[in-house]
Amino acid sequence: MKPVLKRFFDRNALVVNRALDRLLPANTVQPRVIHKAMRYSVNAGGKRLRPILVIAGAEACGGRAARVLPTACALEMIHTYSLIHDDLPAMDDDDLRRGRPTNHRVFGDAIAILAGDALLTLAFRLIADNARAAGVRNAAVIDVVRVVADGAGTAGMVGGQVADIESENGRWKKAGKRIFASPARLLEFIHLNKTAALIRASLVSGAVLSGGTKKEVAALDAYGRWIGLAFQVADDVLDRTGDKKKLGKRGSDAQNEKLTYPALFGLDRSVDIGREMIARAHGALKPLGKRAAVLHELADYIIARDH
Amino acid sequence: MKPVLKRFFDRNALVVNRALDRLLPANTVQPRVIHKAMRYSVNAGGKRLRPILVIAGAEACGGRAARVLPTACALEMIHTYSLIHDDLPAMDDDDLRRGRPTNHRVFGDAIAILAGDALLTLAFRLIADNARAAGVRNAAVIDVVRVVADGAGTAGMVGGQVADIESENGRWKKAGKRIFASPARLLEFIHLNKTAALIRASLVSGAVLSGGTKKEVAALDAYGRWIGLAFQVADDVLDRTGDKKKLGKRGSDAQNEKLTYPALFGLDRSVDIGREMIARAHGALKPLGKRAAVLHELADYIIARDH
Repeated sequence: MKPVLKRFFDRNALVVNRALDRLLPANTVQPRVIHKAMRYSVNAGGKRLRPILVIAGAEACGGRAARVLPTACALEMIHTYSLIHDDLPAMDDDDLRRGRPTNHRVFGDAIAILAGDALLTLAFRLIADNARAAGVRNAAVIDVVRVVADGAGTAGMVGGQVADIESENGRWKKAGKRIFASPARLLEFIHLNKTAALIRASLVSGAVLSGGTKKEVAALDAYGRWIGLAFQVADDVLDRTGDKKKLGKRGSDAQNEKLTYPALFGLDRSVDIGREMIARAHGALKPLGKRAAVLHELADYIIARDH
Repeated sequence: MKPVLKRFFDRNALVVNRALDRLLPANTVQPRVIHKAMRYSVNAGGKRLRPILVIAGAEACGGRAARVLPTACALEMIHTYSLIHDDLPAMDDDDLRRGRPTNHRVFGDAIAILAGDALLTLAFRLIADNARAAGVRNAAVIDVVRVVADGAGTAGMVGGQVADIESENGRWKKAGKRIFASPARLLEFIHLNKTAALIRASLVSGAVLSGGTKKEVAALDAYGRWIGLAFQVADDVLDRTGDKKKLGKRGSDAQNEKLTYPALFGLDRSVDIGREMIARAHGALKPLGKRAAVLHELADYIIARDH
């Protein structure tokens, strides 16, 4: 990560972490176990990509981080809820997440389900609370509720997760042809929804709350689409080529007959596809001029990272 | 149910059912299975109590049903999501709900979890959409997002569910003393949160969207608190005394060493407690005058019903 981008991430991750700590109910509030479970997963780390994109979206439209913080935290809570539910035995059945036991391994399946539900619910409470920030219009807050709900629901993240589940263990070879025009279409559907939708919603939320113009909002939306897709292509490529130690695992996709870019297009073509997507991401930022400097750097980082 | 109340319920259930059908994504939208799963549980029937309370809350403040319908549907979706998640093997592990196989028995645990998540998410989208209704202020919509999120989250429904889980199978005998001043306090906490919170949020949402005064909103909130609690007392009493055929089951609470009003106070005193709560519900409605006629009838029905 280049120094400018790293400083941007470090500084804002700190601001976001403080806000998350302030906005989550305390461990001492009854029933304690649910608040402990929510905090356990929110505090499990991660880059805080989505809340930082809310802030970056705001700043790209001349807005300020302090005025979009509740919504930034809301996006991180939605991301966290999705990880908790994805890890459940009924879904991916994962015991570890970022090297720590998953939520349900610590608190049990019932509390893990409810902790996810509670984080999703709290997210919308926080977006509503953002109406109190100086200079934020009520109409913008209502737009953000809509944008985030669409990004997180069946037209977004949940829809992508469902399509992913339906195409697991090689089932995409049938499902891809039955439901979509081709497996490539199915793959695009999964990534556009499972990953890109919430990234787009993050950028757009920051922009809308900061009074961004239609043109600015559309630019950030397009940018989010391309970095979201490229992020997944890069993930697929890393699973084939990456350093096993840095990734924690490697080659698991091929073993699981997973629908991936390398499986469909081969490794070389996948690398090219990722680069093309990042070129489009850069192009999308044009209307934002110099304010988009950090977003340009982020785009390059997405395909340059090694873990 | 008295004729006036029955007409009110029948008429509005029809309106709500039509709106739900219009506002849920069609079965044909990809990924189809999640929309099928959402519709399966929303269409499983039920009295539509919460959406009808949104409408009743609106009308008690001089508002109109048509202008609160998206929010009314949102409350039903939140109720439905909570039932889908409660029925999961990780929670109550129920195979049947209202005589039909539960969501996870039809669609599998993963899709059931996601269908619940999606209904909760869509609920907030619909509340935001209510801003488009004539005469509804943006500030009121934002208040409703807050009220509903609080009623559904850890300070409401999810919190009550967690406390209920923690006190299952006689564990309340220990937990009730450890966490709360007494088992009676724990029992009140569970019912206030698990049941009353969303009922209160329904009434208050309708009132707020209809421009109800602080006094009117507070009256409906208090009323919701008392009918919510009385509803649970009546349920506990019915479990001991009710007709097995009409209830579907009877006496299961005692078998499970469940924390109930009869278990703590005996049957006769429980019946009295329920009546006192309903008296308070009637009293709370005073500021609303004649507009509250249907709510008075509903209060009486809650302890008069036999299933």
